Parts: sequence; structure tokens; C-alpha cells
Amino acid sequence: MGKKVGVLLSGCGFLDGSEIHEAVLTLLYLDQRGAEIVCMAPDIPQAHVINHITQQEMKESRNVLVESARIARGAIKNINDVKADDIDAVILPGGFGSAKNLCDFAFKGPGGTVNPDVKRLLDEMSAKGKPIGALCIAPAVVGMALKENSPLVTIGSHDETIGALGAMGVKHCVCGVDEIAVDEKNRIVSAPAYMVGPGIKDIAKGIEKLVDKILSMI
Amino acid sequence: MGKKVGVLLSGCGFLDGSEIHEAVLTLLYLDQRGAEIVCMAPDIPQAHVINHITQQEMKESRNVLVESARIARGAIKNINDVKADDIDAVILPGGFGSAKNLCDFAFKGPGGTVNPDVKRLLDEMSAKGKPIGALCIAPAVVGMALKENSPLVTIGSHDETIGALGAMGVKHCVCGVDEIAVDEKNRIVSAPAYMVGPGIKDIAKGIEKLVDKILSMI
Repeated sequence: MGKKVGVLLSGCGFLDGSEIHEAVLTLLYLDQRGAEIVCMAPDIPQAHVINHITQQEMKESRNVLVESARIARGAIKNINDVKADDIDAVILPGGFGSAKNLCDFAFKGPGGTVNPDVKRLLDEMSAKGKPIGALCIAPAVVGMALKENSPLVTIGSHDETIGALGAMGVKHCVCGVDEIAVDEKNRIVSAPAYMVGPGIKDIAKGIEKLVDKILSMI
Repeated sequence: MGKKVGVLLSGCGFLDGSEIHEAVLTLLYLDQRGAEIVCMAPDIPQAHVINHITQQEMKESRNVLVESARIARGAIKNINDVKADDIDAVILPGGFGSAKNLCDFAFKGPGGTVNPDVKRLLDEMSAKGKPIGALCIAPAVVGMALKENSPLVTIGSHDETIGALGAMGVKHCVCGVDEIAVDEKNRIVSAPAYMVGPGIKDIAKGIEKLVDKILSMI
């Protein structure tokens, strides 16, 4: 049996959902290493819908699970139906959707809260010592959910974001785009991806390292 | 100056737009080889919007250029603003959007027509002998646009689709997912990608070969 890795999506598009390149490269590197992939997302409305050309809000409503299914080619589960016992690890690609739909860090900063189903799964994974990976801004979700454990993550080099993590008790280390931060105690691996960038060839390096590290920890 | 390669998108999601994995892997392999990428799409309504979980049509309307911008992270041009002189080659990722939005092959088969702006660019590229790449079902767009040249493509192994190409005068050769079909005369390279599949690690092989071949023909 291969290793079973959950990929927690938050929509489809970096301004209101999952960052598409980060999500696809996560799937690529997992598949190339023989891992079984379990895509999942919460069945909730998106915080909003953003036009990715103008960066302006659009007057429409979309569902996080339905839009995430575009990246997963339809093979996706409602996060409610996934328990920590079903997977060996979980990876959260970035994109503002992770900080808007999986928690409200993008709107409320360190005073925000995590979606209850996302928090339940991350708590379960943490309690069982199963590895958690997070890319780009997604370490904010993991940090917020598990802040009582004082986790260590990387989230790029933006001072205000690092400060907001610090206000929650999350420790931070600066990483280059081709590096990963490893919190061995809390079993959390993070990579800055498009928080640093600049291009897809650059973020690919850190994502491949993160996938290798997560699989080695199972 | 690096080689400048257009990537012609048709939305965001394999059932009503561009196949996301194929599009992202095209961007990855182009960027890794130092090519300058010019993403583009037509500014037209999608033929329809499909829920990628239920595969049913949704009662909403989306714009091909706006949705394609999700894959391009906002860096996208209206195809009207792109001339063959602006790029050295063009690649069309697959997804049903290419056969629904860039032409109407998915609805009308060999009797369909190509979007006039897409046809204009493909005609210009062909007249200048600039290479054209197409993945998955997208060879139907290229075949329909350039049918008077009797192009040779691969589109997987589905008899009905191959028959519809043949009815347009397009020649077909069967390729494995890790192979490419090369029409040296017409400067067209194609790979079956998810027409064959099954997984992202499999389609990655053919897409990487196609990108290498297209860049070598510039």
C-alpha cells in the first residue's frame, strides 16, 4: 500500500481560492512518488469571488468544494468525510483562499478563527503525530489551528504577516523559495512558494522538497 | 532574449475550460527552460459552466478570459492583442474548453467552426511557419483551423473523436501518453495527455517532450 496523503484545497485561483500552480505541483510530486492522493475541501461558500485580471470583487457566489473540484478533476471529498485515520499526512497548498476560506486570517489577522472542520482535522492529525505540510500563506491556517503548540513555520519575508503569526504565538523562520522549514516536534513542514516566488520554476523546487520531507516523515 | 511562447487558454477546469494540470505543467516546463510565457485567451462567454463534482451544468455565466486568468495568475492577454509577430510559438493545453470555447467541435463535431480570433492567430502562425503545440483534445482546434493543410495530430485512441478529425481531413496517429506526434511539414506537435492519462505523473512525460520539441523548432 502506498502512502496516503490528503491535499486540502480552498477553491481555485490564488486571489480567492487555492493557488493553482502550488496545488498542481503538490499533486505532481506526490503522484511521481507513488503516493495515493486524497483531495478534500470544506463544503462552504467562498468568502468572495475575485476577478483575477482586475483584482476586484465580483458580484457572485461560489462554493469552495465545487471550485476546488476543478483542480482535483472531480476526485474530491468533503473534509467532513475525512478523518485523520484515513490519511498518513496532509498538505495545504497556498493561495489567499487558505487565509480567507479555511480560516479568516486574511480579514482578521491573529484574532481570527479556523473553519471548525479544518481545525478538527488538523487537531486530529497533530494529536496522532501525522505530518502536516503547508505552502505559501497556508502556514497561517496551520499556525492558527495549532497555536497552543507554538509551532514553527515559514511564510516568506513579509514583516506584517510574520508579525501577525508572532501575535498568535507562532514562531517563524525566513526561508528561500527553494528551502523548507521543519518543525520536528510538531511534525509541520512549510515552504514559502509564491510568498517569495517569483516564478513557477522557483516555487517548484521548494514544493518538491516539502513533498519529499512529508513522505519521509510517514 | 529568450524564446517567447504563447499559451492559449480556454477557461479554468477540464469540463468547461482548460485542463488545469496540462496548463500548469506547460507553464512549468516552459519556465524551467527559460522561455518567456505569454498567456492569452479570448474575451468571450464560456459555452457553459459545469460543476466538476456532479458534471452537471450550473445556471451561471463566466468569461473565458477572466477564468483563464486564474491559471495565469492575472498575467494574461486578450488574444485579440496578440499577433504571430509577438510570439515564436504557441501551445494549446487541452480540456473541453478548447473544444467548447475556442471552437465548437464538442457540440458540432467536424461541421463546427473555430472562434475567429483563434483562427486568425493559428492561420498567422501557420503562414509564418511558427510551431504550434496542442495537448489532449486541443488538436481538434488546430486541426479544424488548419484543415486545408491536412495536418497530422494525435488525440488519443477514442474512435469517434479520431473519426470526427478524419471527416475534416485531419490525419491521426495513435500515441502513448509519453509520446508526441510531430507534423514536420505543418510544424504542429501534439500529445494526448488526459485523452489517455491516467494520472498527472503520466501526462507530465508527454507534455515535457512536447515543450522540448516546440522550443527546438523555434
